[in-house]
Amino acid sequence: MRADFDLENIDGEARAGTVRLANGSFNTPCFMPVGTRGSVRHLSSLDLKDLGAQVVLANTYHLMLRPGAEIVKNAGGIASFANWTGLTLTDSGGYQIFSLDPKIDEEGATFRSVYDGSFHKLTPETSADIQADIGADIQMVLDICPALPAPEETIRESVEMTAVWADRGRKTFIGHPDASSRQSQFGIVQGGTNSALRAESAKRTLEIGFDGYAIGGLSVGEGRNEMLDSVSVVTDLIPEDQPRYFMGLGDPVGLVNVVERGIDMFDCVLPTRLARHGTVLTSGGRINIGNARFAKDDDPLDPGFPQSPGNHWSRAYLRHLMATDEPAGARILTLHNLAWLFNFVERMRTSINENEFDEFRKETLDIWS
Amino acid sequence: MRADFDLENIDGEARAGTVRLANGSFNTPCFMPVGTRGSVRHLSSLDLKDLGAQVVLANTYHLMLRPGAEIVKNAGGIASFANWTGLTLTDSGGYQIFSLDPKIDEEGATFRSVYDGSFHKLTPETSADIQADIGADIQMVLDICPALPAPEETIRESVEMTAVWADRGRKTFIGHPDASSRQSQFGIVQGGTNSALRAESAKRTLEIGFDGYAIGGLSVGEGRNEMLDSVSVVTDLIPEDQPRYFMGLGDPVGLVNVVERGIDMFDCVLPTRLARHGTVLTSGGRINIGNARFAKDDDPLDPGFPQSPGNHWSRAYLRHLMATDEPAGARILTLHNLAWLFNFVERMRTSINENEFDEFRKETLDIWS
Repeated sequence: MRADFDLENIDGEARAGTVRLANGSFNTPCFMPVGTRGSVRHLSSLDLKDLGAQVVLANTYHLMLRPGAEIVKNAGGIASFANWTGLTLTDSGGYQIFSLDPKIDEEGATFRSVYDGSFHKLTPETSADIQADIGADIQMVLDICPALPAPEETIRESVEMTAVWADRGRKTFIGHPDASSRQSQFGIVQGGTNSALRAESAKRTLEIGFDGYAIGGLSVGEGRNEMLDSVSVVTDLIPEDQPRYFMGLGDPVGLVNVVERGIDMFDCVLPTRLARHGTVLTSGGRINIGNARFAKDDDPLDPGFPQSPGNHWSRAYLRHLMATDEPAGARILTLHNLAWLFNFVERMRTSINENEFDEFRKETLDIWS
Repeated sequence: MRADFDLENIDGEARAGTVRLANGSFNTPCFMPVGTRGSVRHLSSLDLKDLGAQVVLANTYHLMLRPGAEIVKNAGGIASFANWTGLTLTDSGGYQIFSLDPKIDEEGATFRSVYDGSFHKLTPETSADIQADIGADIQMVLDICPALPAPEETIRESVEMTAVWADRGRKTFIGHPDASSRQSQFGIVQGGTNSALRAESAKRTLEIGFDGYAIGGLSVGEGRNEMLDSVSVVTDLIPEDQPRYFMGLGDPVGLVNVVERGIDMFDCVLPTRLARHGTVLTSGGRINIGNARFAKDDDPLDPGFPQSPGNHWSRAYLRHLMATDEPAGARILTLHNLAWLFNFVERMRTSINENEFDEFRKETLDIWS
């Protein structure tokens, strides 16, 4: 099912709008938290609802191994399994697999399970089928994601293989008895930081035709300027009435940078992972709650963000919970960081609708870069 | 401040009533969850409020080392530090220390910190002072708690030293500039499973005179019948208008057994520790959610307890969270086990008020023993 993008306002190239899917819609720009194994660490689906999350990402790689796609399917899909009333997206499994140094051939990628060492093979076809079983609202096609920097030849090969796999993944999805009526499938543009290869990958992905488009293989070690140039090459080519998803970005500077270039969606483990390490996103920038200066600080967690769910507790108390490894500490900071980032994205959306995005962008860079 | 026990109804020797403290009151029988370091693992003070917890226990041993009593004092005491609006109780530190094989002399117990290996000494005087700083509504006097079984001579010495320490701890508490006006201090009866020594310890503790009385040194390895005989010896001696607290008990059979003998209060890490290991308290008895038979079970966690906060999720999903070590799993099971146990205690209280305690006791034994 084609994902339609309804534009509310465009300010420069920054877009505020709504993405419509088969089972619901969400406002953009949209940050999607990562619930790796069907749970954002420390949070339940009720917490995510309270936080106002719209779309939650889950990892195909993990779910296909534990509990297995069949169990998720029998539960009615990942949202039903986790009792989540919002929307969902699954990655293709590729990103995790490529971090495990898999054996790649034309057919697919062979890798070992992190859980029990057993061998598994994921192909564009099985990835689409498994994601159909997991049943998220959006599934991603299996792509090849090389680590950067990489030789041009490696990038070129990845673009070629990504296009071949995309065609096979799309055919499988379209041919699936019911996936294509209830799910949307997004294509992924590769090409490293090589503008010509990015453009080629975008065109080949667009020729196949997907319900939405993602930019993959960036924010993986390259420089920020190279990354952003590659984004612009791609967003210029994607039709305005379809959503554009930058995979794997969650820092405030990164978000304003890609939204400035026409991106609508992004996901990242960053805000939740930072929380588990005691790093707090605040209106004044990052703080680490473990710092000794907070030991006697009876201010609430983030006085600059009065609606924070972490503000029920003092910095001194939260520092103590983190210092003693009490899981309530990681949970409260996770709630805060997500609430803060959702609020940040909401303010960004408002700034676009009010044609003040450039001011918002500059303020963000002043504090965060 | 003397803790008054107001009787509502007595059924046999099982009592339903209210304990009044300087800053509030709570209904009995009362189960107190354990927030070792000022947090019940995986839960916040708001969660405990939602669960209907009345009194939360914290461990002096841990808090004196991390974050230190001074920091808790400066935050306005443990309840204020944790933003907990209910009542609190601190143990004396003795129980943890005795598990660390401390060096005991007449003055006190010298032990090493689990955090950094540093040496510390706790005396009846410093325990009372530190607990005054921590500022819970109830503090416990420092006692000597031998592991059972133990030679009679060891038990006799522990009773003797406990009485000497109790006298010193009480004097320190009474002499404290403000602790005795805002806190209650409970004495602790020792004596192993020797009825004569239990009676002697009770009498000596009563002679000193405390605001409430606890039975310590049981549920530490002895047989259930010996334990219960020792309880009866003590509860027969404590004045009816003061609360009686059995330290360290949290299983349904144990609770009906001691309530049957006139106990009003109890605490235990059991329900929360079980939750972290996947063991669920249900109306039909314990289940372990990790069992393979739950892998495809889409029933809610405990259909027999419709108000469980865990019933938003299926057994299959919660099994998956526990199997993959997702902290949301331990959290949800912790919420469930505490909700279940609070409900169990509430039903026990109702049965006493309706003179049906014996039926409740028998039903509990049928399911749980």
